[in-house]
Amino acid sequence: MSILVVGSVAFDSVETPFGKADDVIGGSATYFSTSASYFSGVKLVAVVGDDFPEEHIRELEKKGVDTGGLKRVPGKTFRWKGRYDFDLNQAHTLDTQLNVFSTFDPEIPESYKESPFVFLANIDPDLQLKVLGQVRNPKFIACDTMNFWIEGKPEALRRLLKKVDLFVINEGEARQLAGEASLVKAARSILKDGPKTLIIKRGEYGALMFNGGSIFAAPAYPLEDIYDPTGAGDSFAGGLMGYLANTGDTSEASIRKAIIFGSVMASFNVEAFSLERLSSLTLEQIRARYAEFKRLTHFEGL
Amino acid sequence: MSILVVGSVAFDSVETPFGKADDVIGGSATYFSTSASYFSGVKLVAVVGDDFPEEHIRELEKKGVDTGGLKRVPGKTFRWKGRYDFDLNQAHTLDTQLNVFSTFDPEIPESYKESPFVFLANIDPDLQLKVLGQVRNPKFIACDTMNFWIEGKPEALRRLLKKVDLFVINEGEARQLAGEASLVKAARSILKDGPKTLIIKRGEYGALMFNGGSIFAAPAYPLEDIYDPTGAGDSFAGGLMGYLANTGDTSEASIRKAIIFGSVMASFNVEAFSLERLSSLTLEQIRARYAEFKRLTHFEGL
Repeated sequence: MSILVVGSVAFDSVETPFGKADDVIGGSATYFSTSASYFSGVKLVAVVGDDFPEEHIRELEKKGVDTGGLKRVPGKTFRWKGRYDFDLNQAHTLDTQLNVFSTFDPEIPESYKESPFVFLANIDPDLQLKVLGQVRNPKFIACDTMNFWIEGKPEALRRLLKKVDLFVINEGEARQLAGEASLVKAARSILKDGPKTLIIKRGEYGALMFNGGSIFAAPAYPLEDIYDPTGAGDSFAGGLMGYLANTGDTSEASIRKAIIFGSVMASFNVEAFSLERLSSLTLEQIRARYAEFKRLTHFEGL
Repeated sequence: MSILVVGSVAFDSVETPFGKADDVIGGSATYFSTSASYFSGVKLVAVVGDDFPEEHIRELEKKGVDTGGLKRVPGKTFRWKGRYDFDLNQAHTLDTQLNVFSTFDPEIPESYKESPFVFLANIDPDLQLKVLGQVRNPKFIACDTMNFWIEGKPEALRRLLKKVDLFVINEGEARQLAGEASLVKAARSILKDGPKTLIIKRGEYGALMFNGGSIFAAPAYPLEDIYDPTGAGDSFAGGLMGYLANTGDTSEASIRKAIIFGSVMASFNVEAFSLERLSSLTLEQIRARYAEFKRLTHFEGL
């Protein structure tokens, strides 16, 4: 089955303790699509300016991403500039130029409207709701958000959360949204009035899933060096949703496997700047790292 | 098989966002012994002042802890006062009174010298070395330490690490000891010139074990409320060493199980102040929580 993703395509300039990259391709929808493309078809809705090179679009298409919903409009593409220090869980934004993204009003092409899987990357929750108004009978909807929207549009975000099946959010943002220091209590509070499943991303500490009374803890892959954490969350979501769409199985057991595939994709992504590593993987490499997660977490029962 | 533990017995005064406790029993050897006592015999070496109530010693003895090595000397018992804010991984020390602990010079009773398992809790590494000079043919030695000794006695600590089988340390202290921001590189560097196995404690994020080329990641048990994190690390070590001593099996697979038992004991310990919860468990409760860790981490293979 295929996934509709709505989010950003951007140019990033990133500095980390391991080096820097200027004006490389980034954006939530780009990372998500590239990651998900190893598992399933992806239909991309986003906007770029007239400065965006055709070759990047061809690259996505080569990976099987349908770019019919990627609008090109006059003006400059969204640009983000950031720095990471040794605490790689924390991005320091140096500059944000929304450019054509500031008037982004996602229009879902007719041929995309029946996509069974929908991923709403981190954009204005009013726009996320607008996307949901255009799709028909989706089987499984997931969304992300950020502190900016939790503070600025809490009501729209709450309306959105009632409509999604899966909500993926950072640890600090989960606490902020629930107004609760205990992460387990924050999770229960978010689930009470919203999605059936909540996944809390903890960067180098992995992820926690809450689903009814069930909790699943996944570690992150222990890497010697994390070159660039940009896009880790969207690569995670791409592997996760890609696996669910591939199998069509959205049971709790399937979501657990999907979280590991998401963690696998995020671990590859942070090994290089931009899409360098994420865009050049083989299925064998992905499966081998999944097997490493199994060894990483294995212990015998009683 | 039995475990020899050398460490502190103390009175703690602790404040957390959930309440406070004054002059309650604490100390690394106390938490360790109580935790390990569910699994194996424990022989305790520590020192207390003449203000230490007999009833606390009787409590330890009722749990099967041999207190023949617990010296009572004139003066006051070691006292620690600390506060935890919402970041429960970080203790803020308000007051430390070493009292009789300042001249602690561990003497191992003759009947303790052949203990097959030895745990050197966090004390001066020169004293830890002195203990090792007194034991005969131990099968398995583990130790803990803290930033104070990493800064103050790095040479003694390095000599000690060459003699132990297992080193248990906090995440921040592992980075500090190795002078390396990458945790995986820090671990490899510590293992290169020291113990065969390294366990890095990450508080609410669980633990990582490094053993040769193998890595094991264990989550912490997701609790709604952590009432008091004091003694979590020593309860962890107690469950871990207790299980190893119980089975006599120190293989990599057995250490993985032992880490889960350690995590189980730490999770009970932080549910209440002092030894309140840790000292009143049943084997059924311990086994049930072990089974919960299995469900918490389970995902299907490829």
